[in-house]
Parts: sequence; structure tokens; C-alpha cells
Amino acid sequence: MSDCFYCENGEKLRSLMILIKETQYSKIYLNRDQKHPGRCVVQLKDHKTEYFQLTKEEREGYFYDVAVTAKAIWEVYGPDKINYATFGDLVPHVHVHVVPKYEGGLDWGSPFDDSHPKGLLDDAGYEEAVKKLSAKLDELYGRSFS
Amino acid sequence: MSDCFYCENGEKLRSLMILIKETQYSKIYLNRDQKHPGRCVVQLKDHKTEYFQLTKEEREGYFYDVAVTAKAIWEVYGPDKINYATFGDLVPHVHVHVVPKYEGGLDWGSPFDDSHPKGLLDDAGYEEAVKKLSAKLDELYGRSFS
Repeated sequence: MSDCFYCENGEKLRSLMILIKETQYSKIYLNRDQKHPGRCVVQLKDHKTEYFQLTKEEREGYFYDVAVTAKAIWEVYGPDKINYATFGDLVPHVHVHVVPKYEGGLDWGSPFDDSHPKGLLDDAGYEEAVKKLSAKLDELYGRSFS
Repeated sequence: MSDCFYCENGEKLRSLMILIKETQYSKIYLNRDQKHPGRCVVQLKDHKTEYFQLTKEEREGYFYDVAVTAKAIWEVYGPDKINYATFGDLVPHVHVHVVPKYEGGLDWGSPFDDSHPKGLLDDAGYEEAVKKLSAKLDELYGRSFS
């Protein structure tokens, strides 16, 4: 879809997130806005807009990817809870925001709120975050971890 | 967990939602606050707090249930997009809010916002909603619908 920035896979996407890992079903990104430290986005590769449009195999693979991303964030950042959300009224390509929350920290006890000022890192900060999450995802990937 | 209103399954839960259907993995509820018409909650039966704590079988069964609930809402209410969210910092038992959104309607283009006044129905309204969603879920359940 040419009006979908996930499918377009260009500057707009790169201004918002950095690719960490690509799997059979998903692309796993670090969200550039790190006001909730460790926040990632898991994008379904195929352009579908509702969970019920995924095939069984795709749904099972995709939600494994969401779960393993959450597990990686959990181990690298040590949050107290993770929030998971798919909104996308205006960008309907299926993606899940995987947002770590910290007791006493920003938005604790209420939905994460993107109207707060952004929390951007410097290049070294992004590099470090991607490196740690990428290593943890590689370690966990394919494993059963429940 | 005695401090979890999902596990307690008492008055607090019933003040917030009405059971529509129980499956092997989930309980599917109509949210009493219907300011987003058709809004449901899909609760994991077992008390687990993060997606990565589910077994493979449980994760696959649970996200099938989330998808089939969205499909039922789609067919009964005809929304333009569905939002899916797990927050639960304070009520961590895994549950997904399945929230239909309508172009030009409440919160279109931004995350659904529970700080708006509630949209409660009368008894007949709840009965009608539960009846329609229950019939649709029974029709769809067990089918592959992608």
C-alpha cells in the first residue's frame, strides 16, 4: 500500500523507529521515542489491518514475535509491567506497541500517553539499545519461554 | 489471586462487564461502558500477567479468541477499525480491550480514552448486545476466518 508508511519502508518509518530484527512474520523495531525506556514496535510484515485477517499460521507466528519482544524488553530493561497496544485508525497496518512501564514512572497506572514530550536518545544511546535488544532476541528466538 | 478482580469473579467484575462466552482459554465480556459501541474485553482464564508467560498452546488459543471476538464485533457493529490493548499496570491479569472505532466518532484517530464520561446502556440494551454478539461468536467459533 503506497500510502502506508510501513509498506513504503522509507524516511517516514526511519524517522520513527529503527529495525532490530526481521522474522518470517514480523519486523521488530526500537521506537525512537524512548520516554518509556525499551519501547518497541512489532509490525506484521504483510499489509493486513485487523487481527482476524491473519491466517492461523501468521497469527501464531506474529503473536510469538510480540511475546518474545516483550520477554527481551523484560530481561534487558527490567520493567514492572508491559503494555501492548494496536491502534492504527489512521495507519491500519497491523503493529503492536510494546511499551514497558515502571512503577512510579511515566504513565504508571494509566495507558501510555504519546502527548508527552518525546524522549529521544543520541546515536550512541540508540546503538546501545539496539545492540542489547538484538542480542537478547537472538538468544531467546525460537525458544519456548513460558 | 485474591486481589485480582478477574480471579475474584465477583461484584467488582460484574459492575464492569457482562460475560458473553467462555472458551477453553478465555472469558469474553461485553464492556458495560459502551461509549465505543461493541467494546468487549477478552480475559485469559489463567492468572498470568505478561504475554510471554503463556504456554504456546495457551497463547495460540487466547489470540484466536481475541481475533474471533474482533471479527464478531466487526460483523455485528460494522466499525471502521478495531483497537486492541492490554494495559493492566494495576490489574495485571492478562486481558485485551477490543475497542471498535468509527470514522468521525469518539476518539477516531487517537487511542480510545476512558476519561470520557461512560456510555451506559439500559438492561434491554445490554441484553440485545450480548444476544447478538453471543450468536455471532457461536457462529464463528472454531472456524478459520482469514
